[in-house]
Amino acid sequence: MVYANGKKILQLSGCEAVYTSCMYQLRYITGLEPENGCAVVDKTGVTLYTDMRYMEAAEKLLAGTDIKPVLYKQDELLKRLAAYESVGISFDQTAHVEYLALEKAGAKLKNIDDAYTQAMTVKNEWELGNIAKACEIAEDAFNELLPEIKEGMTETEVAAMLEYKMRKLGAQGVSFETIVAFGAHAAVPHHETGLTKLKFGDEILIDFGCKVNGYCSDITRTFLFGDDGKHEDFKKAYASVLKAHNLAKEKIVAGMTGKEADAIARDSLKADGYGDLFTHSLGHGIGLNIHEKPIVSPRSEQVLQNGMVFSDEPGVYVAGEYGIRIEDTVTLKDGKVMSFMSKTDKKLIIL
Amino acid sequence: MVYANGKKILQLSGCEAVYTSCMYQLRYITGLEPENGCAVVDKTGVTLYTDMRYMEAAEKLLAGTDIKPVLYKQDELLKRLAAYESVGISFDQTAHVEYLALEKAGAKLKNIDDAYTQAMTVKNEWELGNIAKACEIAEDAFNELLPEIKEGMTETEVAAMLEYKMRKLGAQGVSFETIVAFGAHAAVPHHETGLTKLKFGDEILIDFGCKVNGYCSDITRTFLFGDDGKHEDFKKAYASVLKAHNLAKEKIVAGMTGKEADAIARDSLKADGYGDLFTHSLGHGIGLNIHEKPIVSPRSEQVLQNGMVFSDEPGVYVAGEYGIRIEDTVTLKDGKVMSFMSKTDKKLIIL
Repeated sequence: MVYANGKKILQLSGCEAVYTSCMYQLRYITGLEPENGCAVVDKTGVTLYTDMRYMEAAEKLLAGTDIKPVLYKQDELLKRLAAYESVGISFDQTAHVEYLALEKAGAKLKNIDDAYTQAMTVKNEWELGNIAKACEIAEDAFNELLPEIKEGMTETEVAAMLEYKMRKLGAQGVSFETIVAFGAHAAVPHHETGLTKLKFGDEILIDFGCKVNGYCSDITRTFLFGDDGKHEDFKKAYASVLKAHNLAKEKIVAGMTGKEADAIARDSLKADGYGDLFTHSLGHGIGLNIHEKPIVSPRSEQVLQNGMVFSDEPGVYVAGEYGIRIEDTVTLKDGKVMSFMSKTDKKLIIL
Repeated sequence: MVYANGKKILQLSGCEAVYTSCMYQLRYITGLEPENGCAVVDKTGVTLYTDMRYMEAAEKLLAGTDIKPVLYKQDELLKRLAAYESVGISFDQTAHVEYLALEKAGAKLKNIDDAYTQAMTVKNEWELGNIAKACEIAEDAFNELLPEIKEGMTETEVAAMLEYKMRKLGAQGVSFETIVAFGAHAAVPHHETGLTKLKFGDEILIDFGCKVNGYCSDITRTFLFGDDGKHEDFKKAYASVLKAHNLAKEKIVAGMTGKEADAIARDSLKADGYGDLFTHSLGHGIGLNIHEKPIVSPRSEQVLQNGMVFSDEPGVYVAGEYGIRIEDTVTLKDGKVMSFMSKTDKKLIIL
């Protein structure tokens, strides 16, 4: 199963062998990401080099696969790499110091970043399944969280509770630091979750996600903790953001560029008078990394294809007043958008 | 406060300027680690380059410091770097692709990995304070966890609960994926926490830690969930590991090499007949990274100094039977070992 990924990279690279010590590339090629690990792919298969501490776990987890765990010995590895006609590595994910060591050992290195991007941007069924599970856990955790939110709780407490629920539901960990923003904090797209206490009438913005087998989910929900009657502008803007979010889902199709996709939501917000307040891109790719290709922004010429996974996250931010973002992780299937999220209601929730 | 770190690196580097886009180096120099951020240090101060999404947060968090957040524009940054006599970068933490871009722009690059290691291995008071807090949270969370451990809980549930408690106590996040191992799983030093259920008589090994302002704690505790009378060998080994752990604390002094420090615990375990079963190093450095310098292993010639922070973690592993590891995060102060952990009892706990 997993060797298929290594094989794909090897074929796309056009090299005799592929080498990596990058965590997410290791995960892609071997299904594991042991600290200090590295892997070699050639036509005979995949070798995962690791140290004593991880050897037993690796042997157990890789039993029955075509990936062979081997104890890392630098000399042997460098000798092996030097013997190939060509060795593909990611210049983007290889430290310069490691590049120098490989070069010095005589390895004939070639940059294969494009092969990784090409292979990893379009997901296979197994990858989509992991992302779907990570999205399901995130939504279930959110739904469990809602009735437990109480006045006086801090942003950090809400984040901790949400993360606990995701972990309990089977998440391997979070896909990034959970953002919980109360009140006007929501106007800062990357607010640092803190010790502010929740009070009646506050809006709440939560941007979060978790990992399953290394694959990420990403979701944002904005809602109200009681209605103090001071949310007229907020409610108007919420309706406009939700319209843009849904329009993107409806109208984005395979074959569009990232720019065209972004414009669907952006034009809708512009028409409603919120154009200048949507200060970021509509979306980013999601996979083993929380931010990867494709880019769905006003400048992206990348063509969207079936099997790509990205976020649909329009937003409107008014400094000092409110911020709204509504985000699903979605994919393209049979040419159309399919959302991984269907368990959370996007009509404005008022707790 | 934080500029002091940038200045230290600049001085040690001997360069006219220092540049980094590495997360932990950014955290060291600016106190923040925005995604896609980078920083330049020169004699005029520190500039943090970041994008629109993080700008508002960065301005707020850096207000009143001598660190200036600036919107990232690649052209301007490259032009600035090309104008210096010399620019220090970490070859170990710079991607080869970025090295090539900087070189192409005309920057005169020099490897300053040694400066980072030298500066970051010895911690200042602020850094020690963060590590102390991260250790205190970890211990408090562990003590809160103990009475809540029940038969039938899975390893993942115990991990989730512990992480929740740390987060609620103010941790920024975990410092690595929590390891919870029931029964013979504890014999695998890097066991992958899973869905195994706890049963009466199981041993429990938990290796965990959290972060405060980017700084890590690292702690391992091994104990019994009830005594089924089958733990004679385990108890004998536990006493021996604890003796080695305490002996290291007592006898390690500043000026020793990592090798000499490691030997204190290793010789004690050997004398007790467990030499071959202690399959890893006594310790590793802890700071912004969970594994950094100094190395405390049978081959380390590094001299231990006041202000260094490392783990004291002897262990004994019998495949298929049991595993024991007792770990504190410690530092050297006035020439002697000072543990950051004093709130958890290391006498064998039987729940």
